[in-house]
Amino acid sequence: MTSKSKIRLCVTAPLGADKRVVLSSEDSHYLVNVMRRKAGDEVVLFNGRDGEWRAKILEAHKKKTILSAQEQLRPQRAGLDLWLLFAPLKRASVDSMVQKATELGISELLPVLTEYSDSRGIKITRLAAIAKETAEQCHRLMVPKVRPIQTLQEVLEDWPDERRLVFCDEAGKGDNPLAVLKKFGANKKIKSWALLVGPEGGFSPDERLHILSKPYVVPVSLGPRLLLADTAAIAALTVWHLALGDW
Amino acid sequence: MTSKSKIRLCVTAPLGADKRVVLSSEDSHYLVNVMRRKAGDEVVLFNGRDGEWRAKILEAHKKKTILSAQEQLRPQRAGLDLWLLFAPLKRASVDSMVQKATELGISELLPVLTEYSDSRGIKITRLAAIAKETAEQCHRLMVPKVRPIQTLQEVLEDWPDERRLVFCDEAGKGDNPLAVLKKFGANKKIKSWALLVGPEGGFSPDERLHILSKPYVVPVSLGPRLLLADTAAIAALTVWHLALGDW
Repeated sequence: MTSKSKIRLCVTAPLGADKRVVLSSEDSHYLVNVMRRKAGDEVVLFNGRDGEWRAKILEAHKKKTILSAQEQLRPQRAGLDLWLLFAPLKRASVDSMVQKATELGISELLPVLTEYSDSRGIKITRLAAIAKETAEQCHRLMVPKVRPIQTLQEVLEDWPDERRLVFCDEAGKGDNPLAVLKKFGANKKIKSWALLVGPEGGFSPDERLHILSKPYVVPVSLGPRLLLADTAAIAALTVWHLALGDW
Repeated sequence: MTSKSKIRLCVTAPLGADKRVVLSSEDSHYLVNVMRRKAGDEVVLFNGRDGEWRAKILEAHKKKTILSAQEQLRPQRAGLDLWLLFAPLKRASVDSMVQKATELGISELLPVLTEYSDSRGIKITRLAAIAKETAEQCHRLMVPKVRPIQTLQEVLEDWPDERRLVFCDEAGKGDNPLAVLKKFGANKKIKSWALLVGPEGGFSPDERLHILSKPYVVPVSLGPRLLLADTAAIAALTVWHLALGDW
């Protein structure tokens, strides 16, 4: 991602022909100090609303860089409506999971506290920074939103009924997950999905029964091997893409 | 993995009733210094040949621990015959890829040098240690072998004809990879498989054509998103399991 044409940045400002964009101090530092870009150089900008734009640097300062959007390269497209619910993990695992989920098109990331997890290692601002950087590198047109941490109980109580929740159930002896999810493919009314993976120690028996009691829950099994939580998340996302996505 | 009953170690010695096993100094250090186990405590051992055994510590020393195998817990089973060929990546990515491939049942790991990659960050002994630790944690009965690094050209020249090589081809506009692989499911003669994922910059055009010219190569596409190499490896492994494995 170091070639001159490849820098992509997600910004908050509106994008349009000749619109001026002022970068955050973090992005200015990255562009000017780290990547050594100067006035006149071009970068690619997106903001999750106005598509992707070629932009020219007007003024390059270490703390405040000003650009002008030049030309739309891609129009905005609706992304997937797919959430990932995950319990806090070790820092390296949660960082890797957020990165990979972003690559695979997740729209919202929901850290949830479960009975066998605690909130060590979850820093929402760090996860949001990883999601932004990954979306920039992977040519996405939006950055997944990272929600504040809640208990799983709270999230389930407040659940939007029309959204199906794919539950990666280690304790279950489920069918091939592809067959389970494909059954939903014919029902065009279901457009909103979420995936739930547990912490390293799994869910408590009570918690598991509570999840399974919800009408919107779709339990699946991810094979006979013991998978770490971040691996389970990527595997589940891959199955979802094969059954219901655009692969 | 810290509860008293859960320590699993892969050893090189034969395992059988009352067989004495001398741990390596690394495993002794882990068991005695890190995990604080003492004479009389039990652990689980496997060696990739004789199944899984409950074993009792006879003498616990920091550098040399002696155990006695007591009872077979699981017989040895043939694992998958599935290799992963991957180009060197950044250290964190390659470590994560080796871990996840081990969880997902890979039998051999083959680091390969490609035109757009170099061998920075590939330390075979470190990768072998990660494979061992992951296999121990994930209840596998064998540790994947990590081969010395070779050029992709060398590996392809020396390829066993009956082994199919699934090529994750970023530049291709492939069909749904599940459909491609499922076609092979009916052919029971094909038992040996391998997956190939490229480096961050992909394959060179010449290299790509060279790969595609081989009769044993099965090209697949992993969807419209730009995936980092370690994510592509896990996604490809998941597809393989769904099409040809035991999920």
